[in-house]
Amino acid sequence: MSGSAGSARLGEFGRIARFFAPLAGPGGLGLTDDAALVDCPPGHRLVMTVDAMVEGVHYLASDPPDLVARKLLRVNLSDLAAMGARPKHYLLTTALPQSFGDDWLAAFASGLAEDQRLFGIDLLGGDSVSTPGPATLSLTAIGEVATGAEIRRGGAKPGDDVWVSGTIGDAYLGLKVLRGEYPDLSPDDRAYLAGRYRLPAPRTGLGARLIGLAHAMQDVSDGLLADLGHICDVSGVGATVSLPEIPLSAAAARITAVAPQIAAQFATGGDDYELLFTAPRDKAGSIKAAAKESCVQISRIGTVEAGTTVRLVDRAGKAIEVGPAGYRHF
Amino acid sequence: MSGSAGSARLGEFGRIARFFAPLAGPGGLGLTDDAALVDCPPGHRLVMTVDAMVEGVHYLASDPPDLVARKLLRVNLSDLAAMGARPKHYLLTTALPQSFGDDWLAAFASGLAEDQRLFGIDLLGGDSVSTPGPATLSLTAIGEVATGAEIRRGGAKPGDDVWVSGTIGDAYLGLKVLRGEYPDLSPDDRAYLAGRYRLPAPRTGLGARLIGLAHAMQDVSDGLLADLGHICDVSGVGATVSLPEIPLSAAAARITAVAPQIAAQFATGGDDYELLFTAPRDKAGSIKAAAKESCVQISRIGTVEAGTTVRLVDRAGKAIEVGPAGYRHF
Repeated sequence: MSGSAGSARLGEFGRIARFFAPLAGPGGLGLTDDAALVDCPPGHRLVMTVDAMVEGVHYLASDPPDLVARKLLRVNLSDLAAMGARPKHYLLTTALPQSFGDDWLAAFASGLAEDQRLFGIDLLGGDSVSTPGPATLSLTAIGEVATGAEIRRGGAKPGDDVWVSGTIGDAYLGLKVLRGEYPDLSPDDRAYLAGRYRLPAPRTGLGARLIGLAHAMQDVSDGLLADLGHICDVSGVGATVSLPEIPLSAAAARITAVAPQIAAQFATGGDDYELLFTAPRDKAGSIKAAAKESCVQISRIGTVEAGTTVRLVDRAGKAIEVGPAGYRHF
Repeated sequence: MSGSAGSARLGEFGRIARFFAPLAGPGGLGLTDDAALVDCPPGHRLVMTVDAMVEGVHYLASDPPDLVARKLLRVNLSDLAAMGARPKHYLLTTALPQSFGDDWLAAFASGLAEDQRLFGIDLLGGDSVSTPGPATLSLTAIGEVATGAEIRRGGAKPGDDVWVSGTIGDAYLGLKVLRGEYPDLSPDDRAYLAGRYRLPAPRTGLGARLIGLAHAMQDVSDGLLADLGHICDVSGVGATVSLPEIPLSAAAARITAVAPQIAAQFATGGDDYELLFTAPRDKAGSIKAAAKESCVQISRIGTVEAGTTVRLVDRAGKAIEVGPAGYRHF
């Protein structure tokens, strides 16, 4: 772990020793070396991903630092889950303004510590630098998967069912709630939706259990339809998703009961960090069992088809226009 | 590889496809999946490190983008070299202001491509996000080392020689040159010193050849004495370095010929990205042979001793005071 000179309070080396060294696993070598060591068990390969968050762009400056840390970790764990990998380690870069005191960092580290326990992972190393702002955070997550078992985006086949975990649209609504919209919502619903935006629930248990069942998988970050578009692009297929089959939380359902037209926007909203996958019809029973073992709700929301089009349809099978944000071809 | 919406010009997905996908190795899966796959050969472990650079803090906004990219890569490769690891892959996070056009990114990617060829590495994945500024770059580098062969900081023993590769002080002077100091220096010397600041030369060949020879190693980033202090701290030893033995480039020697008092500052300047290591005296011949094979100059500059003090001495063995910047205990 390296730290640049010139920061406030404890100094970067002191901050590393105080806040980050206690998070380090054996491979992190106490954060006293130039680099970390990672073993990979025989018959396995490592899976790696990196995601960054910028204050004011990806989270609000007023967000609690422990939740910022946990969201940063969890969006990366969600990427590992989407490959079927078990999370193991992470490396962290923090670029923080001098005005961020040790209190902020202590809270940030406490969030990391909590999720390390929940997900069974440890810190390998990182870099702490200063910036005139905004705070910029980048995290590299490392998982393991049996060689060849990894679930990729390119395996979807016509006739596959399209499945999604959890509920869709909560994060989209949660951000609106945090910005002051839906003032008539109950405090419980507001807290639930805001929590879903601030603290995704990466489906690491379910992801690993879908090995051998799912043909293609990714997590929902850009939006359900856009991300299904990614799977279809790489797989060379199309798909149809049924809007009424998209699973909603009780809070989201109470909103659509009053404003039904908003439901289609959940399919494009993003930040859900649920698993979106396709699988042959004859695996449906095993998939439901895997979901039950993982204590995660899953829903069959559509079908993979020949072609290149991703369509959203209503109960009658009529196409719903969701606008250019719904699916960008690139 | 993931990209956030809302950026200028090509759009983030277009930029990834245009500039980054051509850099991806097989494990990067064309940057179309959630994460990358990394195999580790039997009997080896992976070595990982991350370093970040912020515009205006770690490099100048006017620095050519290809050199910024190569410096970002090379400071990380230097960390791998310091463990004796062979570099293999990297992941990249770019947080760029919207004002950075495709030209900047094209030049940045061309720098990565050049160093990929030079060092035999490939891109695994990354994240591209937008920021109100400044540009913030973070790179995770991944290498391989035979299990147990890695060279760590904690192995220095009293009686070891202290060695350093290349020359020390060039980057310190190069930054001053770039800031307009030393106006009387020849254009060649100015270009050489600025180049040493902008483009470190990670000693990846030498680092791997020192396995089985060096007791302890790290790269010189904070400054020769500070980094020797890190080795001594972790090893529980002290050391004495002889100022006249510290190797200088011809350009640096021409400056000290006129201003001899500056030489001591080279030992605290930092950004050298040379290898600093300790080894038993009886390995001196093998070490010189390893350096020759690597086409890298090396110099014996001191001795490891019992105790906890790191001293710089003159030709007569008299201690030279270098001030608090020389060595920070943490």
